[in-house]
Amino acid sequence: MPTIKDVARIAGVTPTTVSRVINNRGYLSQNTKQKVYQAMDQLNYSPNAIARSLFSKKSGILGIILPDLRHPFFAELAGYIEFYANQSNYKLLICNSNHNATKEKQFVDLLKSNQIDGLVMASHTLDVDEFARLEYPIVTFDRIIDQFPYVCSDNHQGGVLAAEKLISLGCKKVGHICGNLQLDLLSNQRSWSFIKTMKEHGIEPIIIQTGNDVFDYSHYEELITPLFRDHPDVNGIFTTSDILAAYVSRVCNNLGIHIPKDLKLIGYDDVPLSTWMIPQLSTIRQPMREMAERIVQLLTNVQTRQHYNANIFDVEFIKRATS
Amino acid sequence: MPTIKDVARIAGVTPTTVSRVINNRGYLSQNTKQKVYQAMDQLNYSPNAIARSLFSKKSGILGIILPDLRHPFFAELAGYIEFYANQSNYKLLICNSNHNATKEKQFVDLLKSNQIDGLVMASHTLDVDEFARLEYPIVTFDRIIDQFPYVCSDNHQGGVLAAEKLISLGCKKVGHICGNLQLDLLSNQRSWSFIKTMKEHGIEPIIIQTGNDVFDYSHYEELITPLFRDHPDVNGIFTTSDILAAYVSRVCNNLGIHIPKDLKLIGYDDVPLSTWMIPQLSTIRQPMREMAERIVQLLTNVQTRQHYNANIFDVEFIKRATS
Repeated sequence: MPTIKDVARIAGVTPTTVSRVINNRGYLSQNTKQKVYQAMDQLNYSPNAIARSLFSKKSGILGIILPDLRHPFFAELAGYIEFYANQSNYKLLICNSNHNATKEKQFVDLLKSNQIDGLVMASHTLDVDEFARLEYPIVTFDRIIDQFPYVCSDNHQGGVLAAEKLISLGCKKVGHICGNLQLDLLSNQRSWSFIKTMKEHGIEPIIIQTGNDVFDYSHYEELITPLFRDHPDVNGIFTTSDILAAYVSRVCNNLGIHIPKDLKLIGYDDVPLSTWMIPQLSTIRQPMREMAERIVQLLTNVQTRQHYNANIFDVEFIKRATS
Repeated sequence: MPTIKDVARIAGVTPTTVSRVINNRGYLSQNTKQKVYQAMDQLNYSPNAIARSLFSKKSGILGIILPDLRHPFFAELAGYIEFYANQSNYKLLICNSNHNATKEKQFVDLLKSNQIDGLVMASHTLDVDEFARLEYPIVTFDRIIDQFPYVCSDNHQGGVLAAEKLISLGCKKVGHICGNLQLDLLSNQRSWSFIKTMKEHGIEPIIIQTGNDVFDYSHYEELITPLFRDHPDVNGIFTTSDILAAYVSRVCNNLGIHIPKDLKLIGYDDVPLSTWMIPQLSTIRQPMREMAERIVQLLTNVQTRQHYNANIFDVEFIKRATS
């Protein structure tokens, strides 16, 4: 089995430098990193979590900043990340940010002070400046920040799929319910691609945005109800989450609109909620398990991090009873 | 403001002993602890998280072992615990145990090696022997282990409330769906008190247990369906979780049984899912926020831990559309 000294010899650097590259510590030129990565590839040298801990001070803890653990999508994602982290001998520290930038910054400081070994950024409150030029294992979710690898579902593909399904089902008057389209989130591509595809078919969707706090459900019902009052002929809706779809389903039930007879409904995520709803929700499935596995690999394996910057996962249309 | 030296003087011990009592470290006689607690009470001395960290090595991390983060109740509970932990300057480390005793034991070892400062046991896989005589801040949830303080909702009250509601609604043939009644869990008191109250009214409930893995939803539907085949006259059901109620609702929808006309349904927990269901679920509400706050107090404040061993929280019947 190749050792760190073999890597150093082939790369023409010291073992200490190899260790710094592996652990992403201190200033390292792109050229030095490249030489070390090539030597590692050549020798098929793969430092694992346990091996790394032998020559570096590791906490054995990964951190995740997410908007709200109570949101089913993030509970699923965190649950799977914890599963894969555990398989690599890491524990998971949770920051339920609720858009609290101070709290998020404290988590970044944990990374700077070596109290955690890697960080998943699945919330988007902190200013990009807090991260830029940080030489630490960071993975972002549904957002691109500087040089960090990012993970997301193929939001473009999801928006197109949802549009094509509604069109093929004969929907002529279509609504779209989403978060805040002003934010710089990859997930907003679901909306842009849905809208574009609809327009290409001569349909101008009615768009309802939940505003800044997409995780405050209390106003969903009053936000959605006017759509049906102002446009009683709406017969197809795509929402950017399954929870939003659950609220559409509830409003329709209140108003006596029958799903799927009067209205076709498609959600996004495929959290368990989509099968707990009546009728069960047709949705665009994000492969949460696979995304979580990649996130943990990116944080714990320097070679994965080097080779995969954009980690975009295929989505799938799951047909259930609302379409 | 009183200092640790004042407490030591009044208790007739050294400041080091006071520190050990506060941090629950090393062997301490019950008599010594009592003297220190009394002196702290007398002086109204309250060591907070920050003050404690000045004279003891603290990680600033609390741990929670729970069965499954993907279960809405535990996602809620963990979300609230994270919130209150943060208010006391603690972070939250999550162990999604999935009945994996080895994984749970690793978390107990973190406590023994001072890598976490306190532990919530909300899963029940590990043998009691792993905990007995541990002199560390541990709080159990829905289970009693030795001397540790425990937190639960008033499961007895919840079972009685559910029974009385179904009886007052005129239900004569009643079903009850729960976990595994052989396990030594406080939550099983929901079932025992429900059954007892029903019997006192001359009704013998039909009981369906999910078996050992209450968190594996995949078999719920086939478990519940025979209840209606074998007992088509069932007109009232109490489930020990809102998720179980969601599956009852789905099965009834499949079978053309109308809720609440043909069947009254009451759940337990009051997670957001209960308002996402159609019809919205009547349920017994556990005060999750208050329970989470107490859990954090018990782990971070030695006086709370001293004064409250049994922490049983009132439940409330929430009337919605299924009853």
